[in-house]
Amino acid sequence: MALALRERELAAEVVGVVRSETSRERLGALGLLDSITLDHGEAFAGAEVIVVATPVGSIVGEVKRAQAEAEAGALITDVGSTKADIVAATRSSPPRDKPPVFVGAHPLAGDHRSGPEAARAELFHGATTVVTPSDATRREFVVEACRFWESLGSNALEMTAERHDQLLALTSHVPHIAAAAVAATTPDEALPLAATGWADTTRVAAGSASLWREILLANPGPIAAGLRELAKELGAYATALDAGDGDTLERMLEAGRRRRLARGRSVADGGNDALGD
Amino acid sequence: MALALRERELAAEVVGVVRSETSRERLGALGLLDSITLDHGEAFAGAEVIVVATPVGSIVGEVKRAQAEAEAGALITDVGSTKADIVAATRSSPPRDKPPVFVGAHPLAGDHRSGPEAARAELFHGATTVVTPSDATRREFVVEACRFWESLGSNALEMTAERHDQLLALTSHVPHIAAAAVAATTPDEALPLAATGWADTTRVAAGSASLWREILLANPGPIAAGLRELAKELGAYATALDAGDGDTLERMLEAGRRRRLARGRSVADGGNDALGD
Repeated sequence: MALALRERELAAEVVGVVRSETSRERLGALGLLDSITLDHGEAFAGAEVIVVATPVGSIVGEVKRAQAEAEAGALITDVGSTKADIVAATRSSPPRDKPPVFVGAHPLAGDHRSGPEAARAELFHGATTVVTPSDATRREFVVEACRFWESLGSNALEMTAERHDQLLALTSHVPHIAAAAVAATTPDEALPLAATGWADTTRVAAGSASLWREILLANPGPIAAGLRELAKELGAYATALDAGDGDTLERMLEAGRRRRLARGRSVADGGNDALGD
Repeated sequence: MALALRERELAAEVVGVVRSETSRERLGALGLLDSITLDHGEAFAGAEVIVVATPVGSIVGEVKRAQAEAEAGALITDVGSTKADIVAATRSSPPRDKPPVFVGAHPLAGDHRSGPEAARAELFHGATTVVTPSDATRREFVVEACRFWESLGSNALEMTAERHDQLLALTSHVPHIAAAAVAATTPDEALPLAATGWADTTRVAAGSASLWREILLANPGPIAAGLRELAKELGAYATALDAGDGDTLERMLEAGRRRRLARGRSVADGGNDALGD
């Protein structure tokens, strides 16, 4: 994001807040930011836009701090991959004159690499960023948040936080669990027979288990519902196989194929993934 | 295969058998083969190795024809992605002096591209080829089949046809159905939120439904068992989510992660996929 902001000349100054001297040195050596600090107050001074880009478990605390300490009228946004809990927990900002306003967001951008060394300015290009205001969010801030995310090259898509979480359960959380479950139910002795089909289907399962535990626990209801739906579909395949019912198998395969192809092109173009995943 | 055979100078002549003049012209223009014919007899004359590389539904018929018509002592092999049905159906070759011998094989090589235009000589390099003799296959032919597949650059792995089908159900057929089911249970309105994680997990679902119907129907028992095991695992995730049981979630995720990483490197190196899938 820092690279994109600087390359597109969107900000007079891009300041990074880190938690340790080690991070400061590592980031500093990469030259991604105009300045780097361990001091939130220093970063908040004069900041018009504040982006919280921590693991999901820390986002609420960081947003609340910005709501309390950032300058009047600042826009606060985030990159968390779950939204309902974050939007609900940050709804009541402290009583202030022209308080900073939080508008939650989830840029569906990223890849399997992580860390500042993997940064690239075109990360958001063509990606979708879901913007999730609450019903209390003033319209001007919603518009500003959408403009901010579009200025980075992504397409802003506004919906409620609850809707985001329901849809993301089906496009990210359930697929992640399906990948992990396919991998876990493949015995070691079968691995020499695992080719690129298996490798693609299970790729996301290589992600951090502790990070994903957090993500899943932030959205349990929609995920559990999606998993039960998926298990039912697998059961229908098993029943059709037991019966040797080729027509039903082909019909189900074709439904999956059509849905896959419907998304194929745009995913390939965007080359994006869920940040914070 | 023709490219690999010629590049490695493994055969004096590589002859292709096709079913139509159109195919003959298309293949001829690409210059992959020494000669191309519509006449099996012409191709069998002098052939030491015969490779049946048709869709799985046609393999048995082609192998039987080669068993009846090819020259004495020839090796017949195939590239079918299911093996038990093919090996069983081709067990009794016609009574002949020094009959040609069929040794089934499944090279786990290929990618999402198909057709002769996608040919590359290094396709088999580093891939696993499962070789599945029956208990009646003479040892010298098993050795010759393994040598043939290794001469193309793949690693031959011998096992029974039944074992192959059980393991392949878990590394290819169940993952394919999981991918199709994930895609089919993603509603259209969620597709703008589908990023590379979803795209990878569902990629194989873009494959031909009619081809996969054939593949699945050739291996119903092991696939149905694998699907029920997978559905059970998804149910365990749903239960853990209902209970907010983060430790169980993380333990399951970590089991999937470890299995994925165990295969990660070699899959990436091989860059291979199941031919005939």
